[in-house]
Formats: sequence, structure tokens, C-alpha cells
Amino acid sequence: MGWFATDPTCTFCGIVAGRVRASRVYEDPQVLAFMDIHPAAPGDLLVIPTVHATGLQDIDETLAAHLFRVVHLLVRGLRRSGLPCEGVNVFLADGEAADQTVFHLHVHVFPRTTDDRFRLEVRWQERSRADLDDDAARIRAGLTLRGPDRSP
Amino acid sequence: MGWFATDPTCTFCGIVAGRVRASRVYEDPQVLAFMDIHPAAPGDLLVIPTVHATGLQDIDETLAAHLFRVVHLLVRGLRRSGLPCEGVNVFLADGEAADQTVFHLHVHVFPRTTDDRFRLEVRWQERSRADLDDDAARIRAGLTLRGPDRSP
Repeated sequence: MGWFATDPTCTFCGIVAGRVRASRVYEDPQVLAFMDIHPAAPGDLLVIPTVHATGLQDIDETLAAHLFRVVHLLVRGLRRSGLPCEGVNVFLADGEAADQTVFHLHVHVFPRTTDDRFRLEVRWQERSRADLDDDAARIRAGLTLRGPDRSP
Repeated sequence: MGWFATDPTCTFCGIVAGRVRASRVYEDPQVLAFMDIHPAAPGDLLVIPTVHATGLQDIDETLAAHLFRVVHLLVRGLRRSGLPCEGVNVFLADGEAADQTVFHLHVHVFPRTTDDRFRLEVRWQERSRADLDDDAARIRAGLTLRGPDRSP
């Protein structure tokens, strides 16, 4: 985990550098977007910071905000592209436990159609108001902590 | 679909206004975050604009960037909260075809653990470089179009 200008072993850094081929859609000095080579549907985009950051804790708030400013731009472009797109999911996996498989931070932009096979499988739970209030207090406390993130 | 200051029939607008109870974690004039009352796991957060916007096409890039600046802040707070969190998924459903069920734009922040039941079910496809290049060209063209988004 960490922030480096570039990682020579990273495929996404290779795309940024132009060593690895990609179908580019958008680029500026901080952010690059290109077509996912293994899409769930035509139009699937990956949006990445140009620096090699592994996860959200490795980028600052300014870069995070800009990354998603570009996601927002691309969602609108995708909806106007003529590609099948009745809806859009934005998805980010931060950490191996969250099913991140490429360890260069990336945001998925998934065009959706009503008959696709895409599905988020979640077992929604009930949680009491007291527990919810306690969860909220813990996260508020986490917002004020300094230093490195506690979890991996 | 549209951008209104508030929608009296919307539960999330009710939370913003204080008419509907919620366990709040973060708020500023533009963005509010609170615990999902039906979490996939303890710590599940919803992050919303305080204005009643249905989808990403209903907010401007400045608000989109700020919304996700707050998401980034909350992910870091969640990781420092002491709640079980080995990874994080950020998920947004924009449109009914993308499984949006509450039509006030919201971003999910899901804490993940290695043994949870959360799963994104996607059938990844192969797509030729020529097709990927064509998809990219269409989306680039979509970025330059003006006027309302074509798709619903």
C-alpha cells in the first residue's frame, strides 16, 4: 500500500505511461479513463488516478474529488454515447476483502440495461436505532483521528 | 427526474429536513451522511446531496466532486472507527435499470470483511480491441454533446 509516482510492475501504470495498450476515453494530468478490456457490457469504463495509489487512503481529498468529478463527466458522456445504457452503476473496490483485484485504485462505470445479468448480492439486515447511533458515533470518532488508517 | 430544493414525499429529503429520524455521521450545507437503516453490515453508510436530485445527471460537477470528497473522508473514518472493516466498496445506482430503489441520489459505503456474503455478480466478457476503440470513440463523442442526456 502506498503512493508512488509509478510502479513499473503495474499494468495500469503501464497504460498511463503508454507501454500497455488501452482504448482511452479521457485524460488529464491527474486522471485517466479507458475501456475495461473485460467488460460486463459494452461501455464499461475504468477511471484511475495517474499516480500509483493502491486505495482511497493513499490519495488526498483533492484527488479523490477530481477522480469522481471525472466519473460524473463520464457517466453523462456514456448516457449520451448511443451505447446501450438505461442506468449506470459506479463501483469501487478498496482492498482485497472488498474484492479489489488490481491494486491500482480504479472506479468502475458500468452501463446497465434492464435485461443484463449484473447483480449486487447483499443480505440486508435489520439493525436497532441504538446500534445505528453507536455505529454513527464510532465513525464520527474515526473522522477526527489522525495518523495512518487502522485497518489493512 | 430533476433537481428541486426538496421533495416533500421523499424520505431522504425528510432526513435532511429532520422530519425523519436518522443516525447522522456527517453534514454540511451540500452533503449529509447517515447510517443505512437496512445495512449489509454494521457501518453501512449512505451519502446524499441535501438537494433532491434523482441521479448524477441532476447534479453539477462541483456537487458531484464534493459528494465524493465526503465519501473519501467517510471511508477513512470508517476504517479508523473500530467497526469490522477490512475493505470498503463504494457503490452508486443511477437509474431504475441500475437497481436504484430510492430516487434521491445516494452513494453506499459498504464496510467489507473476508467472510461476509456481499457479492457483485458480473459476467465478464471478451471484447475486441476494435470494438473497445469504437466504444471509446462513442463515449468521447458523448462527452462533447450538449443538451439533456439522451437515455432515461
